[in-house]
Order: sequence, then structure tokens, then C-alpha cells
Amino acid sequence: MHPDIDSERHLQPFSVEELTNILDGGAQNTALRRKVESIIHSEPELSLKDNYFMTQNERYEAAIKKTFHILMLAQRLGWSEGSRELQYASRSVSGDLGFGIHHIFQKTIRSLGSEEQIAKWDPLCSQFQILGTYAQTEMGHGTNLQGLETEATYDVATQEFVVHSPTMTAIKWWPGDLGRSATHALVQAQLICSGARQGMHAFIVPIRSLDDHSPLPGITIGDIGPKMDFEHTDNGFLKLDHVRIPRENMLNRFAQVLPDGAYVQLGVPKSNYFSMVVVRVDILLGEVLPLLHKACVIAVRYSVIRRQSHLRPSDPEAKILDYQTQQQKLFPPLAMAYAFHFVANYVLEFLHHSYSFILDRDFTLLPELHALSAGLKAMLSDFCTQGVEQCRRACGGHGYSKLSGLPSLLTRVTASCTYEGENTVLYLQTARFLIKSYLNTQKSPGSASKASLPQSVAYLTAPDLARCPAQMAADFLHPELYTTAWAHVAVRLIKDSVHHLETLRQAGADEYDAWNQTTVIHLQAAKVHLYYVTVKIFTEALEKLESQPAIQQVLKRLCDLYALHGILTNAGDFLHDGFLSGAQIDMARKAYLDLLPLIRKDAILLTDAFDFTDQCLNSALGCYDGHVYERLFQWAQKSPTNTEGNPAYEKYIRPLLQGQRARL
Amino acid sequence: MHPDIDSERHLQPFSVEELTNILDGGAQNTALRRKVESIIHSEPELSLKDNYFMTQNERYEAAIKKTFHILMLAQRLGWSEGSRELQYASRSVSGDLGFGIHHIFQKTIRSLGSEEQIAKWDPLCSQFQILGTYAQTEMGHGTNLQGLETEATYDVATQEFVVHSPTMTAIKWWPGDLGRSATHALVQAQLICSGARQGMHAFIVPIRSLDDHSPLPGITIGDIGPKMDFEHTDNGFLKLDHVRIPRENMLNRFAQVLPDGAYVQLGVPKSNYFSMVVVRVDILLGEVLPLLHKACVIAVRYSVIRRQSHLRPSDPEAKILDYQTQQQKLFPPLAMAYAFHFVANYVLEFLHHSYSFILDRDFTLLPELHALSAGLKAMLSDFCTQGVEQCRRACGGHGYSKLSGLPSLLTRVTASCTYEGENTVLYLQTARFLIKSYLNTQKSPGSASKASLPQSVAYLTAPDLARCPAQMAADFLHPELYTTAWAHVAVRLIKDSVHHLETLRQAGADEYDAWNQTTVIHLQAAKVHLYYVTVKIFTEALEKLESQPAIQQVLKRLCDLYALHGILTNAGDFLHDGFLSGAQIDMARKAYLDLLPLIRKDAILLTDAFDFTDQCLNSALGCYDGHVYERLFQWAQKSPTNTEGNPAYEKYIRPLLQGQRARL
Repeated sequence: MHPDIDSERHLQPFSVEELTNILDGGAQNTALRRKVESIIHSEPELSLKDNYFMTQNERYEAAIKKTFHILMLAQRLGWSEGSRELQYASRSVSGDLGFGIHHIFQKTIRSLGSEEQIAKWDPLCSQFQILGTYAQTEMGHGTNLQGLETEATYDVATQEFVVHSPTMTAIKWWPGDLGRSATHALVQAQLICSGARQGMHAFIVPIRSLDDHSPLPGITIGDIGPKMDFEHTDNGFLKLDHVRIPRENMLNRFAQVLPDGAYVQLGVPKSNYFSMVVVRVDILLGEVLPLLHKACVIAVRYSVIRRQSHLRPSDPEAKILDYQTQQQKLFPPLAMAYAFHFVANYVLEFLHHSYSFILDRDFTLLPELHALSAGLKAMLSDFCTQGVEQCRRACGGHGYSKLSGLPSLLTRVTASCTYEGENTVLYLQTARFLIKSYLNTQKSPGSASKASLPQSVAYLTAPDLARCPAQMAADFLHPELYTTAWAHVAVRLIKDSVHHLETLRQAGADEYDAWNQTTVIHLQAAKVHLYYVTVKIFTEALEKLESQPAIQQVLKRLCDLYALHGILTNAGDFLHDGFLSGAQIDMARKAYLDLLPLIRKDAILLTDAFDFTDQCLNSALGCYDGHVYERLFQWAQKSPTNTEGNPAYEKYIRPLLQGQRARL
Repeated sequence: MHPDIDSERHLQPFSVEELTNILDGGAQNTALRRKVESIIHSEPELSLKDNYFMTQNERYEAAIKKTFHILMLAQRLGWSEGSRELQYASRSVSGDLGFGIHHIFQKTIRSLGSEEQIAKWDPLCSQFQILGTYAQTEMGHGTNLQGLETEATYDVATQEFVVHSPTMTAIKWWPGDLGRSATHALVQAQLICSGARQGMHAFIVPIRSLDDHSPLPGITIGDIGPKMDFEHTDNGFLKLDHVRIPRENMLNRFAQVLPDGAYVQLGVPKSNYFSMVVVRVDILLGEVLPLLHKACVIAVRYSVIRRQSHLRPSDPEAKILDYQTQQQKLFPPLAMAYAFHFVANYVLEFLHHSYSFILDRDFTLLPELHALSAGLKAMLSDFCTQGVEQCRRACGGHGYSKLSGLPSLLTRVTASCTYEGENTVLYLQTARFLIKSYLNTQKSPGSASKASLPQSVAYLTAPDLARCPAQMAADFLHPELYTTAWAHVAVRLIKDSVHHLETLRQAGADEYDAWNQTTVIHLQAAKVHLYYVTVKIFTEALEKLESQPAIQQVLKRLCDLYALHGILTNAGDFLHDGFLSGAQIDMARKAYLDLLPLIRKDAILLTDAFDFTDQCLNSALGCYDGHVYERLFQWAQKSPTNTEGNPAYEKYIRPLLQGQRARL
């Protein structure tokens, strides 16, 4: 153990183990997770240690190999589909697995297929007799599903669908597992029957031979090539040239085409809409947040080992974590790492709560659930990406080495700003919900309106103050004070949004022009509303920790920091109508700066609590024992840049040095 | 030519060619650049097209190969060292060349070596009989040069220096060209002679055999392994085990060790300090800005090809550049791309101007030059990194494909926030200069103080308004109005900085504690000062374009946008003391939003003016002709994920599909 990190753990003003239990959702989960981790880490096939030296092809092969081994382990140890054990296994290998979309293929059949179709396809999926992918996005079409061009035309003569990509832009592009793995694709296509277009429907299309994996007739298929990250995933393309599939391959729980070509609608697949919400919440907890958590662990640990310059000339070089600017870089992301843990779990609970209603076909909660999950996916992925990059840069040059683990955390987390709904589009969905909610409060004044407002926007009709009552820095450490401040600004900006829309309408713009010319303003309102929501959820989560006062105290500092950092970053929004004065902003800044050295004392413990194994972190800078430089040096020796020869020497360097240039 | 991009070029309210000439610094430069580009692009060895498919080793070999070919071309065509032709050649291949540090090695010898040493080593460098690297940074030491641990101990008996790495953290780490190429290293080490430590000095250490390139005795050397980017560069490590070099290998223009071990100081190498400034200015123009320029070109071009959703239901899908939110993403970076062009050239001119004084040993301008170049390097690299990532995300999923060119622009530009001075450290150097300048104004009141203030801080004593006079949105389109506003806020924050320092001192803190507890506040002041400087430089550059009113008009919109975007992003700083009111912020926002559709009309022309060839851009999304999807599809076919076999099929997928899992 490096003494510089050891000394950080001597005083434990709170129990790290208890905090880990809270993060895991109970001590029994922590125990199970550690058991699974020890199994995974004992298998050499499941090691991540060569990841940084691999090509895209090698990463893909390694991911499939790991998946195969985990499936075998699961069979041997009785880990069932969707079990906590499998979730922990995936976390242990940092999600570097294949066949991720196979499960989405299977779930989609369960939700859009008839009982007959489920009975046929579901066991094939569960037993991996087929490998599925979900082919929706096209080269030229992403967000606007109605714009997809792929066609499925019903041929009465043969009772088949002819699935076809009519243009270059119609080629399916991006589906995971499609490039090199899948045997079947769930293709979203425009249904055409009896000469009429019936909109998007889902079709099961066999794409590769079950004998030798070669593409089937009419199928042009492959991998989309190098990406910023996700090299372990074979994102692919699929061009369909009049591929014929039987009529039974259209998923027909909600619509079907009769043998004679008649189209029959059987219901509205709102559950499909719901499944989008589920995926967004899943990725927050499974894919987005852990990346920020890891970046915080690595950067904070490195910052107590790295020493640079002197706080005062007579002292030895200081740990960089003792500089205010380093604390300013690392503690806001650390505070977010905790804030977003509670936020994501809140949304997950809300989702479970709503699910029971939705099963009973009560969709009342769906608009709020949708607006909240869309907006929070956008906000959390944005902030986690910023946070990871801030942690990476805070490690100076070594943060640029892949061996630090930080570059791949960044290149991976930034993808979450785009996939499963591009963030700007998602923020604007939240904004529409806010505007609609606000207009509802205007329609029916009085107490009736408040009762009908969804919980997350109830503050729209709450009593409001015109001025913040804070009189000194310490006042900004009251959760009620800063929550109220966020609510005030959110309400003001939502009103501002509505006001600008209405002004443009009154000036003669139609609703579409008015919307497009005010979207920048709506974005701002949605972002502040979401910040308010996260502050409120964090403060409420802390109230529940009364029985653990030491942990409550240390987390409250993070909550205060989170709220105040947001206020200072968006100071203009708080000063705009005089709700805060310049003097009050200075008080908030003082409160914020005073928190930094307090959090400093617990920083290592707060990152230890995330309880990542060294193997899972896979970082030369971030290991528990603090032996940064030894590891960096050893790991570099294994790089192909050192283990393979240097052909450039014989070909170019030697001729150059020996003056053979002129003769060549 | 794709009609959607063709139509953008039909109306040319200004001459794109003239704007290109301005950016190139004259029509003759444009012509020369194009000539060089056509030579470079006609050489198949110099093509970048397979870059995205290569491993780190392949990228390195390709870079050395390109360098070798360009050196041969230069010899054949008479392109001299440091010539414009060679600069343009480097630009044509996006700087993907080797031996970049060889030149720094050579320049350092020229500035720190005696005439005798220069006479010996300079020709060896010029003729590439040796290949040099500059070995300063160590594993555990970067920013604080005095903390470097490598030792050079003089041995009177043999008249040699013993160069040694006493610890793990003393290993040289990061020097470019060191990993696999260099034969000699300029090693910065602590000089120890006659038992006394004399601080950092530079030593020439042979590291690889000139016969077979093997490491010399006592030398442990290699590559530091995978990085976020710069894969073409062999950043290396160097561990020295009591390596002996002759006394003559210490560069001794400013200090020397006599045969008997006596240390003689001959002057202070301020020119060394100056060379750091030169490098920082060089990278802005050569390395940082072009990455933002390219990202803007790619993202803006793609945004007129990509169509998504409908501005109104009856219309066809809209070009995404017609959405206000897309303009909000792309036009601030585009405005920065122009602003920073003028800023970087301003600093370059200032540097040339100062250089003549410095040659005459007049160092009066050096503090300002240092503060300005340090701060602007930090600011421009920060903003360029943000801008590139914003452009990348604005391209949705395709921006995540390496074939778009955008990921590598990001992973490359983000390095500039760390190398050649970590940005936070640099901002704080600017802050110290600002505080010192302000305190100077306090010492000697009256007109005398103003005369003595360096130009970039002259505004500290300029008359100031308490309130902004703007009464309507259009008022915010007056450069004088917004420049004054920025100056006002900068002065306020610098005063605030000083005030906080003094308050802490008066409360009993020593100067070091007081500094560390206020650095976050100093950072804020430095950033606002630098924004002011860039706004001022941009507005002054535009004044000089009076003879080209059409260009002046279109660039003024970018200047306005740049200034206003900054005001809106930092609204809190402007509202804090009531200089702007909330109503005035709304006016500024209106002015800003109204600029977006105006810039929209010229956006393609403004990016065309950067005049990057398709080969140099190397982007499937950004080609001049707009054929995005065809290129993306064709390029993907060449990926090793498609051209190489899939071993995972036989090993894992086939056994899985055929139910052999249980049997394995």
C-alpha cells in the first residue's frame, strides 16, 4: 500500500462498508456482488487486462469469448436470465460482452408478437438456437421513425412479404450484433398491403445461414467499421434486396395482414412506447453512471499519489488533491456521481410503480414517466460525459494514456448522449411536457389544478418567493433554501418559454415556426427544471438516511455542493429577476468553496465506497493500493509498440541516418 | 454534387475566394498552398485514407514513411527547412508525421548550446545523421520543472557526467520520437558538481546505436503504449542507469562545468523561456485551430445533407441545419473558428514584434507576451475542444463513426489542453499577471500608471460605466457596446480577485494559503479577461477589412455572435453588479437568436472558405460534394471488420447455435 493513499484511510468518520451497502441496495447485494466478482475474476478468459492493446477485431472476438464463458458459467451455477448474478457478472467485465441486442430482439417479440409467435421464437432465443438483432435505424434516418424507408410489401400470390431497401439511405445502419453475429433481424419497415402504406411494423427476417453463417440470398450485410469506442460490439449494416419472408413473420399482436392482403389493426402498442422508457432507465444504471463512478475513483486516487509543486516553498511537493483548483475539478463530478445514483434509482422505482398501472391499461402516469426519463437520460448522460472528461484532464498527461482507463471511459460515455434518443430531442420532449403542464395550470385556476399536476411539476403552483431570504453563506447549506431557489428559477423559465411561444403566435407565426424559433429557450427551461428535480430527489433521499447520521452528514455535503455548483454555474438565471442578489451569489460561492476542504478529507473513502475491484477498473492510475507508477511502467512493457518489431527502422530510419536519401 | 449542398452555394453574397485569401494571409499564399497540396495528394504514399483502420504500430510506420517521402520531395523540390511549402505539406497530411521533436531538439541546441556545440550538432541534425528527442517530462514530474529528479553528476576523474534516473518516478515519460525513433536525447537533469546541486541543465545523451538502433548500455527505453490519439507518434520512456557522457555534452551557452568540476554561470537563458512562448503560439495555428476548422466544415456540410423530421407537417423532411437548436450547436463554434484565427495571428504578430526587442536583450514585453500566450493557449485549446465535441455530437450517430473524421479530431484536440502547459496552470499565470498589473495601477495613481500598463491590460484604468446603456436588442450589435461590457466585467473580477486575496491576508493567512484558497476566483477573472481580449482583437481585425465590405459584414455577424454567446453563457457575471439588467440579457438573447438565421444563409460558404481538400479532411461526412451516404457505405467495406475473417464464429458462435454448449 502506498503510504500516501494509506494515510487517507486512517480516519473513517463514517463506515465505508455501510455506504457501499446503501449504494448496492442492501448488505446482501454487496455480498452477492462480491461473490460473483470473485468467480469472474478467477477465470482468466474473463480478464480485461489486454483490452487496451487490442484491435477492433480482437476486441470483438474477446467479447464473444467472454459472453460464451459467462453463459457456460450461468448454466453451471444456475444464474437465470435477467438475474442479479448476471448483472453483477456483466459489471465485473465492464459490460464488454456480445449479444446485447439479442435480448432486445427477444423482448420485442414478447411485447409485439402473438402468443403463437412467442411460443415459436422465444425458446429459440433463450436456447441461443438463433441470434437476434433489432434493425431500426437506417443510414439516413434515426430520430424520426416515420421517416424510415425500408419497405415490406405483401404479395398475395405467395402470401409473403417482400422486404426491401429502396435507396442508399434506407440501408439499416448501427444495429448492434448485426455486423458479424446475428442470424435473424427484427426489421422495422413500412408495411405496404393492398396498395396502401400502413406505417411501421416489425418483421422477423432471417439474415445468415444457420449452417455456415453466410449471408442469405438478397442480404448484403457487414460491420460499419471503426468507431470512437464500443469496439467490442459489431454494429452492422443490412441492405435488403427483395427478400421474401412468410406472412407469419410479421409480429401481429397489434396488427395483422390477412392472407388476402387485408390489414387489420388489433390495438395500439403503447407497451412498445413503454419499453423505450425501460431501456433509457436501464442504461443510466447499467451503462452511464458506472463510467462516471469509475472516473471519479481513478482521478481521486491518482490525485493523492501525484505530488506537484509546493503549497508553500518550505514544504515538500503537495498532493495535487490539496489544491483548490483540483478539488474544483473533481468534487462536482463526485457529487454528481452520488446525486445521480439516487436520481436513477428514483426513476427506476417510479417506473416499477407505473408499470403495475400500465399493465392494467391505465396510462395516466405515462406522460410524466416519459418526460422524466427522457429528460433525465439527456441530463445525466451530458453531465456524466462532462464529468468523466473533467476527471480525465485532472490527471494531466497520464490521463491521456489509455492505460489510465480514462480515455475509454470518455469515448464510451459520450455515446450515451446520442444513443437511445439524441439528447436535444429528449430535452425538447421534456420541454413540451412542461409547457403543457404549465398551460394546464392556467386553464383551471385554484386548488383543482394543483391536484391534477403530476408530482414532478407540482411546484408550478406552489407558493413562490420573489427574493431569496439568505443573509449569510451558511444559509446556503439549507436544502429547503436551495431547492426553493431552483424551483423559483424553473418556474420563471417555463413561464418565459410559454411567453415567447405566445408572443410569436400573436405576431402571426404559425405554431411550427413559433416552436422552432424558441427551441433554444425551451432547452434552457427543461435543463433548469431537470436540475431542480435532481436536487429535490437527492435531498429527499438523504432525509431517509436519518438512522445513519455519519453517512447522512458526509452525503449532505455532496448534496449541498451539487446544488450550489449548479447555482454558480447558472448564476445568470438566479440573478435575472433579482431572486438572488450579487451579494447572495458571493455568499453561495463562499459556502461552495468552504465545502471543498471538508469533502477533501473524505474523498478517498467516498470513492472507495463504490467498491470497484482493480480488475474491473482496469486502470494503472486507479488501483486500490496507489502503486501508480510501477503499474504504468509494467503495463507499458506489454504494449505491441514494444513487443513487436519496428519495420520503420529498416525501411526508412536506417536509410535516412546512413545518408541514403539521395540515392533512393 | 448533391443538390442539397449545391443549392447552398448558388448565392454568394461575398467572395469565398477572397475570404480564403484573407485566411491564408494573401492570394499568393493560397496559390502556393494549393500547389503544394496537389503535389502531396498525387503521391499515393502520402494518402491518409487507411488511417482509421490502422493499429498504433501501423500508424507509426505510416507516419515515418510519410515523413521520409516528404523529406525526399523537399530535397527534390528545394523546399527548405521551416519553409511555407513544408508547413503546407504538413497541413496536407494533417500533421501525421514523425520526427516532430527532432526539430525541438535542434532548436534547443541552437538556443542553449555554445557556438562550438552548435557547429558540431546542428549539421548532424539538419542532415538527419542523428535523430533527436527532447526528454524533460518524467513519470512523476511535469509542470514543476524544479521537481525533476534525473541527475547528471560530474565525475572529475573521467571528466564525464553520470546521467541517472534515481527512482521510478524519475523515468523520462512522454517525449515524442523517443519510443522507437530517436538516437539522441536532450535530457533535462539536475546538475551535481563539486557536491553541489546547481539546478536543471540540458545534456545530450546518445541513446541508440547508430549502427543497429539498439539501446546503448545503461539505457532502458521503449514506447509508453496506447494513447487516446497521437498514435502516429512514438511517445517514449527512458530510464538511465549511470550513463556516462563527455563533459562537452552539457549545453553550455549559459553555464558550464570546468574540467575541475567548478560551476560557472554565464548568463540567464531567458531565450529558453521565450522558446516556450513560441511553441505555444505555434501549436495554436498549426495544431489546435485547424482541428476546430475541420470539425466545423464536416458538421456544417453534413447538416445540409442530413434531413430529419418536419419543420411543419406538410413539408418534406427538413435539413437539420434549419433547426434553431442545430444552429445553436454549430454557429458558436464556427464563430470561434474565425475569432481564434484572428486572435492567434495577433499573438503571432505580437511575438514577432517582441522578438526584435528580446534579441536586443530588452525583456520589457516578455511578461505580457508570456501571460497572453499562456492564457490564450489555455482558452483556445479549451474552447476548440468543446467546439469539436459539439460539432461531433451535432452529427448524431454518424459523428461517432471514425469514418466521419470527427472522433479523431476530438481525441487529438483534447490533448492540447494538457500538453505544453496544463491549462489550469496557464490560466493562473495569466491571473498572476492581471493581479500584478492591477496592483501597479493602485501604486501610482493618475495618468502615469496608465502609460506604463501593458496594452492588453490598459483597460484596467479606462473610464468605466456603471450601467450598460443598451435599450433594445439591436444595441447589442455594436462592437463598442459589447467590448465595453466585457471590459467592465473583467475589471470587476480582477478587483474581486485582489479583494479576496487581501481579505484573507488581513485575516491572518500567509500569502501561500491565501493564494490557494482563492485560485478558483482567479481562474474566473483570467477567463473573463481572456474573453475580453479575444473579442477586442476580433473587432479590431474586422475594422481593417473596410475595403471588403461584403466580407466584413458576414464576419461581423460572427463577431457579434461570438461576443453575445459569451455574454449569455456568463450572464451571471454581467448581472452581478447590475451592469446588465435581466431585461438587457433578454435583449442580448434576442439579438443572438436573430443572428442565427442570418449566419445560416452563409454557413456553407463560411466553411468552404477554410479550403480543406477532401483528402486532408478525410471525412465520409464532410466532402465537398455532399455524397455522404455513398462514401460512408464504401469506406465501411474496407474495414478489417469486413475484410478479415471472423474467428469468433467457429470458436464460439457455431458451438452456441448448434447447442454444443452443454457438451463443452
